[in-house]
Amino acid sequence: MSTFSHWNEEGRPQMVDISKKEVTERTAIAQSRVSISNELYEAIKNGHIKKGDPLQVAQIAGIIGAKKTSDIIPMCHPIALQGTDFTFHYEKNGEGYDLIIQATVKCSGKTGVEMEALTAASIAALTFYDMCKAVDKSMIIAETFLVRKTGGKSGDFTHEKIK
Amino acid sequence: MSTFSHWNEEGRPQMVDISKKEVTERTAIAQSRVSISNELYEAIKNGHIKKGDPLQVAQIAGIIGAKKTSDIIPMCHPIALQGTDFTFHYEKNGEGYDLIIQATVKCSGKTGVEMEALTAASIAALTFYDMCKAVDKSMIIAETFLVRKTGGKSGDFTHEKIK
Amino acid sequence: MSTFSHWNEEGRPQMVDISKKEVTERTAIAQSRVSISNELYEAIKNGHIKKGDPLQVAQIAGIIGAKKTSDIIPMCHPIALQGTDFTFHYEKNGEGYDLIIQATVKCSGKTGVEMEALTAASIAALTFYDMCKAVDKSMIIAETFLVRKTGGKSGDFTHEKIK
Amino acid sequence: MSTFSHWNEEGRPQMVDISKKEVTERTAIAQSRVSISNELYEAIKNGHIKKGDPLQVAQIAGIIGAKKTSDIIPMCHPIALQGTDFTFHYEKNGEGYDLIIQATVKCSGKTGVEMEALTAASIAALTFYDMCKAVDKSMIIAETFLVRKTGGKSGDFTHEKIK
Amino acid sequence: MSTFSHWNEEGRPQMVDISKKEVTERTAIAQSRVSISNELYEAIKNGHIKKGDPLQVAQIAGIIGAKKTSDIIPMCHPIALQGTDFTFHYEKNGEGYDLIIQATVKCSGKTGVEMEALTAASIAALTFYDMCKAVDKSMIIAETFLVRKTGGKSGDFTHEKIK
Amino acid sequence: MSTFSHWNEEGRPQMVDISKKEVTERTAIAQSRVSISNELYEAIKNGHIKKGDPLQVAQIAGIIGAKKTSDIIPMCHPIALQGTDFTFHYEKNGEGYDLIIQATVKCSGKTGVEMEALTAASIAALTFYDMCKAVDKSMIIAETFLVRKTGGKSGDFTHEKIK
Repeated sequence: MSTFSHWNEEGRPQMVDISKKEVTERTAIAQSRVSISNELYEAIKNGHIKKGDPLQVAQIAGIIGAKKTSDIIPMCHPIALQGTDFTFHYEKNGEGYDLIIQATVKCSGKTGVEMEALTAASIAALTFYDMCKAVDKSMIIAETFLVRKTGGKSGDFTHEKIK
Repeated sequence: MSTFSHWNEEGRPQMVDISKKEVTERTAIAQSRVSISNELYEAIKNGHIKKGDPLQVAQIAGIIGAKKTSDIIPMCHPIALQGTDFTFHYEKNGEGYDLIIQATVKCSGKTGVEMEALTAASIAALTFYDMCKAVDKSMIIAETFLVRKTGGKSGDFTHEKIK
Repeated sequence: MSTFSHWNEEGRPQMVDISKKEVTERTAIAQSRVSISNELYEAIKNGHIKKGDPLQVAQIAGIIGAKKTSDIIPMCHPIALQGTDFTFHYEKNGEGYDLIIQATVKCSGKTGVEMEALTAASIAALTFYDMCKAVDKSMIIAETFLVRKTGGKSGDFTHEKIK
Repeated sequence: MSTFSHWNEEGRPQMVDISKKEVTERTAIAQSRVSISNELYEAIKNGHIKKGDPLQVAQIAGIIGAKKTSDIIPMCHPIALQGTDFTFHYEKNGEGYDLIIQATVKCSGKTGVEMEALTAASIAALTFYDMCKAVDKSMIIAETFLVRKTGGKSGDFTHEKIK
Repeated sequence: MSTFSHWNEEGRPQMVDISKKEVTERTAIAQSRVSISNELYEAIKNGHIKKGDPLQVAQIAGIIGAKKTSDIIPMCHPIALQGTDFTFHYEKNGEGYDLIIQATVKCSGKTGVEMEALTAASIAALTFYDMCKAVDKSMIIAETFLVRKTGGKSGDFTHEKIK
Repeated sequence: MSTFSHWNEEGRPQMVDISKKEVTERTAIAQSRVSISNELYEAIKNGHIKKGDPLQVAQIAGIIGAKKTSDIIPMCHPIALQGTDFTFHYEKNGEGYDLIIQATVKCSGKTGVEMEALTAASIAALTFYDMCKAVDKSMIIAETFLVRKTGGKSGDFTHEKIK
């Protein structure tokens, strides 16, 4: 098993020393799924918010959030992100609908962007909740996980859920 | 059904005008659940991180995160929080363990702290992931939702999942 | 003439002591005008950006910007904003088009929100520029000023340009 | 005409992928012009603010603002700025004076610093307004534009206004 | 002895619940002392930095820093500051000079501004160091402490060093 | 004597142009010393804060603070830090105890991390104060200075206090 790299010898958290690591191209994709009611889904689709699109706000908040990751997650290194984008789609589930949010983040650096992608997806999901909570406070952010990452010494990773 | 209050007549998002609302005491509790493997649970419990405690870092990040909510979620009002605390506990599930994170936020103001509690819980979960991801990148933030809120014109709310 | 209130006796800038001032309802409206070419106007209107709407991004950035004012303008007091919204419209001018951006900000407090409205309008204008600069770098943010403010000891103000 | 690079295929804004772009030396110069009354100009020059100098505060705010650009403008990449400086001078116009503010920003990177220079100049202008608004709320930020940029694939640019 | 109020029953830090506390007028004064060499003192006084004044930058940074306190100190409550100012003076000591920095912060609220004053003074001292470190890296920030505070349930406090 | 590099020809502060400087490996170590009473020392050691450890919060705040340096100190360049860690130990002095805090910061870049180390140490000291001030408001942050730096054109530096 890998060791916990975020702790120093005193048992206190450190920002890991990455000065000896190689610069490589890195990408990470993270996904959040938000479960919503049929009523909310219909309200969004049938124009109760007119031209408005909660996904537009969610995407912008998520991109800003990706840039804030090292300010939000204490041990994250500041990283010069080189691209961030999102996809969104709705899927019918038994009791309502799932909104599937995927965030993709790229950088060229000495450490990966997994936390940036997870933070971006989470903030997009929270923002979607905020834009729609006047209609339904019961929404559940049902699942957030790292879908895939490439680059870096530990190599590529694909989550078993999507293999 | 309630209307979407976050959109103006042009269909663009606004920060809602709350100047006519009453100041009331408000609380909100939000929960995130993180599913982890037996191996990670054992590593944490058996001292592979010595004195270190990922929950300590998660709590601090979550409290800082609650204060950043209006900077992270575009349409949230700035709010003078009057208290933020967390509880954490582990539960055995079929394949591993669940870490249950609950964030409680209080304020006295014209708008609620639901987004602050949800943001605090999400950031605590993301930080826990960050502190432990060197051991296991497959962790899933399995569920985030608003447990309860009190105060405000729309009255009290308890999520059906915990009734 | 009023005195410069932002300077202490040493000639260094201070955050003015407002502790003795009354809490009143305050609003401020600020306007930015962006001059763009016919080509850019046509590109926006004829769907070269498909569903995309630079004003959507500009409005969101402007609202976030209003909240950041006391972090951006050194001597501004932190203020709990109670509402922020925008209007946008295009007007034909001799050589092209003008985009008229108006930001309205409200609070209930001991100091006004003029700087918040001016900052919100400026950031919306800068964001519009950023979203469209791949098409035209020559855009000019042609004019930014305080349209109106209400509340506070100094009373109401309307700019002579719009009387 | 160039395409709008800030929009993805869904018509939502993205942080453009610059990972394949070359690192080059880049500079940008932006200008803001603030129109002020004779009374305000005389008050500044005749020592009504004693040792105080609104340009000193404006310059510091502008430099801090340049560093905040990627936090203020949603789709801007975080950039490691390598130098920021300002020039200021007053010019007599028909009815009063113009303060001419020029911000110069440098970096070595995969994307340009046009938005950093424009943001720096705008924040310097807003700060000057804030420092002097107790004397005159009618000041107009009369014009903000990109004067020049060098470096990058799209080559050098000089605004036609100053050719 | 007073209890440690910043820890919850689990031994983890909390943002203390102040919702039941009274709103009172509060002030705090904190002091930092920076020890500098004769050479640096002479360079500052004899105009090696021409019109430049490191205290001007230090004061601005300190005021901005006071506003950032709840973002910098994890358990601090966000507070709407109502005034912040500084005094600076130099005193000859045996080997060189001491720069005495005093920050005064005011608010009307449920918790005090001691941390805001201490943070403001510390950031002013660090900024002074930064502005002068090209001349002398050996400067020592020799002492930072809370001089006085008024307001709040625990009453007034004056540090024994200045009684 | 070195010149003051932070001032432009107008006597106003600039962010120094480092575009021509070499990228080198750089480290800096800074120290803060906090003087505390016997009573506070005993309270910490004898478990009045149960499992809680003020040093844990101080370390996390200090690491976050290191990342915020260019946002806090006006003329500092944004730097991609590559590692930050702390050591803490208590020493008996005549009247009580000294807590010795050392922060180490690393980067690979065109400018040094002295300010990042000094800021990290100062914020850790301020956070320690905040966590313990309910017990004792008289604590003094007794001394903060740059212990050592390596890398960069000006070469290595070790403070005479620790030679």
